Amino acid sequence: ALEEGFTLKSRDDEYQLRFRLLDQTDLKVFSPGDQVPARSGLFIPRVRFYWEGQLTRLFQYEVSIQRSVEGVWDLLDGNVNVVPDKRFQVRFGRMLVPYSYDWYDHLEQYFITPERSLFPLNFGLSRSAGLMAHGFLFDDRLEYAAGGFDGHLIGLADNNTTRDAVGYLNYRPFLRSERMPLLRNFNVGASGFLGKQANMLHPLPLRTSIQSSENDEAAQAASSIFLRYNDDTVDFGGRSATALHMAWYAAGFSFEAEWQGGRDHVYRPGLHALQSIPATGNHFTLSYFLTGEVVERRQVVTPLRPFDPARGLWGPGALEPYARFSQLSLGEAVFTGGFADPNQWTRSIDLLDVGLNWYLTKYIKIYFDWQHSMYGSPVLLNPSKDLYGRTNDLFWIRGQLYY
Amino acid sequence: ALEEGFTLKSRDDEYQLRFRLLDQTDLKVFSPGDQVPARSGLFIPRVRFYWEGQLTRLFQYEVSIQRSVEGVWDLLDGNVNVVPDKRFQVRFGRMLVPYSYDWYDHLEQYFITPERSLFPLNFGLSRSAGLMAHGFLFDDRLEYAAGGFDGHLIGLADNNTTRDAVGYLNYRPFLRSERMPLLRNFNVGASGFLGKQANMLHPLPLRTSIQSSENDEAAQAASSIFLRYNDDTVDFGGRSATALHMAWYAAGFSFEAEWQGGRDHVYRPGLHALQSIPATGNHFTLSYFLTGEVVERRQVVTPLRPFDPARGLWGPGALEPYARFSQLSLGEAVFTGGFADPNQWTRSIDLLDVGLNWYLTKYIKIYFDWQHSMYGSPVLLNPSKDLYGRTNDLFWIRGQLYY
Amino acid sequence: ALEEGFTLKSRDDEYQLRFRLLDQTDLKVFSPGDQVPARSGLFIPRVRFYWEGQLTRLFQYEVSIQRSVEGVWDLLDGNVNVVPDKRFQVRFGRMLVPYSYDWYDHLEQYFITPERSLFPLNFGLSRSAGLMAHGFLFDDRLEYAAGGFDGHLIGLADNNTTRDAVGYLNYRPFLRSERMPLLRNFNVGASGFLGKQANMLHPLPLRTSIQSSENDEAAQAASSIFLRYNDDTVDFGGRSATALHMAWYAAGFSFEAEWQGGRDHVYRPGLHALQSIPATGNHFTLSYFLTGEVVERRQVVTPLRPFDPARGLWGPGALEPYARFSQLSLGEAVFTGGFADPNQWTRSIDLLDVGLNWYLTKYIKIYFDWQHSMYGSPVLLNPSKDLYGRTNDLFWIRGQLYY
Repeated sequence: ALEEGFTLKSRDDEYQLRFRLLDQTDLKVFSPGDQVPARSGLFIPRVRFYWEGQLTRLFQYEVSIQRSVEGVWDLLDGNVNVVPDKRFQVRFGRMLVPYSYDWYDHLEQYFITPERSLFPLNFGLSRSAGLMAHGFLFDDRLEYAAGGFDGHLIGLADNNTTRDAVGYLNYRPFLRSERMPLLRNFNVGASGFLGKQANMLHPLPLRTSIQSSENDEAAQAASSIFLRYNDDTVDFGGRSATALHMAWYAAGFSFEAEWQGGRDHVYRPGLHALQSIPATGNHFTLSYFLTGEVVERRQVVTPLRPFDPARGLWGPGALEPYARFSQLSLGEAVFTGGFADPNQWTRSIDLLDVGLNWYLTKYIKIYFDWQHSMYGSPVLLNPSKDLYGRTNDLFWIRGQLYY
Repeated sequence: ALEEGFTLKSRDDEYQLRFRLLDQTDLKVFSPGDQVPARSGLFIPRVRFYWEGQLTRLFQYEVSIQRSVEGVWDLLDGNVNVVPDKRFQVRFGRMLVPYSYDWYDHLEQYFITPERSLFPLNFGLSRSAGLMAHGFLFDDRLEYAAGGFDGHLIGLADNNTTRDAVGYLNYRPFLRSERMPLLRNFNVGASGFLGKQANMLHPLPLRTSIQSSENDEAAQAASSIFLRYNDDTVDFGGRSATALHMAWYAAGFSFEAEWQGGRDHVYRPGLHALQSIPATGNHFTLSYFLTGEVVERRQVVTPLRPFDPARGLWGPGALEPYARFSQLSLGEAVFTGGFADPNQWTRSIDLLDVGLNWYLTKYIKIYFDWQHSMYGSPVLLNPSKDLYGRTNDLFWIRGQLYY
Repeated sequence: ALEEGFTLKSRDDEYQLRFRLLDQTDLKVFSPGDQVPARSGLFIPRVRFYWEGQLTRLFQYEVSIQRSVEGVWDLLDGNVNVVPDKRFQVRFGRMLVPYSYDWYDHLEQYFITPERSLFPLNFGLSRSAGLMAHGFLFDDRLEYAAGGFDGHLIGLADNNTTRDAVGYLNYRPFLRSERMPLLRNFNVGASGFLGKQANMLHPLPLRTSIQSSENDEAAQAASSIFLRYNDDTVDFGGRSATALHMAWYAAGFSFEAEWQGGRDHVYRPGLHALQSIPATGNHFTLSYFLTGEVVERRQVVTPLRPFDPARGLWGPGALEPYARFSQLSLGEAVFTGGFADPNQWTRSIDLLDVGLNWYLTKYIKIYFDWQHSMYGSPVLLNPSKDLYGRTNDLFWIRGQLYY
């Protein structure tokens, strides 16, 4: 079979290039069906090419490009990781920012649900250019990362000039335990950042089913919106957030939970000072492989009985039903300060995802998801029809190819 | 030599990645030479990278990106083809839409003339995201494809929200014939679609020598224009088209012909209802290899005597002169309804291409084309000089690298 | 180790594909620190993928794409080089234009300083589509190139319609000398072009530390600006330039110098005729490898004692301190003709770069640069603070991965 993408190596294995590819296509059906700008249809949320490898063991590199849902290609990652020792590594360039387990621990192709939970989906630091020290200590039990980052540097004419100091810890206390093997892949940790938005920037609307922090231009059609800021609102000044996470993988089970809290500053003309807007969020996600696969972390799943009739394999593939409950709420000031309209939008939302992941083979995964949004107050679903709703449903099928 | 691009394979051949590359550069000389916006010069109509292959025989994939003439990179294809049997395959993702032989049967690199004929050039469905069943029946004699498609999803800020049901048939009745070997590669078939334009969209101008349906932004300089819609005209509502085709490849001859008819709806402020605009088109194309190569279908041509002095091969390569006659006409309503200006544009055009394809080797092809446009009524060639013309010439050399 | 990127070959070596990758990340700290639009921070000036090789010895090809600092991906090179003999080769497609040693002799990854000197940085012809004859004569002692080029064809909605005839000579008189081995890599030569700007185009601002001729959209933040044209100024009509160069590589020394002179025509509403603006520039650059590496030309540097602790190699890598002095001045007419504001900008600048290149291994290079700008008259550094300066400093670290 195929290990680690398609690989080219020098004879001594010291020089390597691995080519990987990710292609996702979404069918989304919104209910009610007459939402604007959200509309049912087919979307291509991510196409990625990865070129990664090493130039001797000391220097690992990755360069990858992504096409986001709105059709813009850009650099995803472009960095060099210097590895004098696995306990102390230094990464330089554009990379994943180590804030929140949902962002830093594993990539989108390994998710339980199609997209991240509400807080990281809307406030996640995503990727930035920076310099980061990271590594694994105490026999791999403790993973750490800490770095400085500057801007998102993504998309056309990016003027996102965030500057952040970011830190991350993940602890697996029982990783080497002989006595409690089921607890070996129990993770607990925390992360946080302290930074500022140096230039004024109009904040993106808050969404339920699309990675908005990666998209500088609105990918309006692909998601319902539950809060759109007024046109004169800008993000500016200090910002910070913390997160606590817990994740446990044992037998066929995956359980992940994270609590996030953060604070941005916003401004609009006529104010004497910046207004601080707190936000909190969380999620609880549980899944289970019906077909016997064992989970140690979220990574490539190799079905025990793959589906491949062309080779006479009529297995069911791997089946992983899941459920996730996620919440997000913003401080009252977002409305009382005049930054968004309380008659049209909500500042608190509960989100339920129930679904099934079907891994036909190691490389083909299909997500079947029902996403039910419950708004704290009615949300404008269609301006021209004056349609409001307190709930909202999305039926979502995602086909994914990855190697 | 090189088969099927550069290929990486697993030992059992089940996992494959093929890398292919297409690079075209055009020299276009327009006559009269003082047209605006068309201007003589060098253009890069297509650069493409293809990554395609299989992940076991059951799952074929292709992901490709294209740079169009105006300098935008975007996803060309991104799909997975599930192949339980060659008679029934299912493709999902972004792909070629099976409307018209000119679009669905073979790719641009194999064309007789540099670009498609007038109807598919201006109205072809090109590529969309969708789900399609297709296959080969009756000992490969009948090829079919049928699917549902949504939007073009191409380029920046695409708001093209077409939704179409599309079907295609191609029949080779004598494919297995022992008695009539010259008729084996005789093809006859039909295709059609029924759909709608869900959002209003300003239609692109009609052109003679550039693939406008793939370019959301005007590639103005690279082609003469024979009809530009008024600024307030929009495409909206139902649309449909059918096509009949015939293609015959025998010995060194290629003959292709197709008749298309379609109907779009347009609107402009002040109208009470949508206006239906019919369009019909056709082409007849004939070519012949002077150098003895035998054609079974339009595909890679391997010259019998390649030109490669560095290896001592002084052959002429393959030489294929050709001629094509193509027509397009739109209903009177495009003018009488006020959607375009009859004093500046024409609703009927005859197009003659005469030229020569020179295949130096299997990978290098040069098109020499003379394109003569004959307009039904005088067309505005240069607004500032008030220059009109009933005919128009283009001298066109295209260099193409493909493997 | 790794020769020439990662390579795929047919068994007889006649068909080749080489994959190469370039990734640069910059840390720039400007002093004074409150400049607008320049701002200190991290930038990604270039990410490039190269696919190049040959399809038999006669046909070499290269296709490469680049992400420039503002986040736009575009075609860098896309051409076929026909090589009947190394003395006479013909290249067709998008390629480097053979004007100035700084542009044509070697690529950015091999530079002594992070970016080119002032004249080629701001006026270099960069890359265009064209047709060029080139080769090496007299036992490789004379390199020549001559061609016709059309437009830059880069970036979104490029309307750059330059047309240029360009020629280049480089002579190494002592290349085969037995008696003067230190002079073998002594180069002297000249280049020039004659052309015109066919469409009116607003000229880019003049900058000190970013390749502006490659970026059609402003990459404002990444460089100080010393001359911004008035909004109604356009480039139009004839243009020409010549250059004389000298380069000498011997033992660990590199010495490069070039003198350029050119003439553009500009226009603004209200003028009766185009105004000619002359520009002259030069640079003198010297570097030396402290660590014993020998230089024959600017190319990949293989450190004698690489730094790679993971393999037990604790060498210092290669260390190359350098200094460069560069000048640029424009004719008085740029101010007296009303094309730019003399109270805000300067028409003459001296630029000093002093720094160190650290090659950790063959693939990883870090530039440490101090760039000191000395303006002929005070330059506007921050419009809102009314801040002007006669000098300006930039502390610049560039990390580069290339294979």
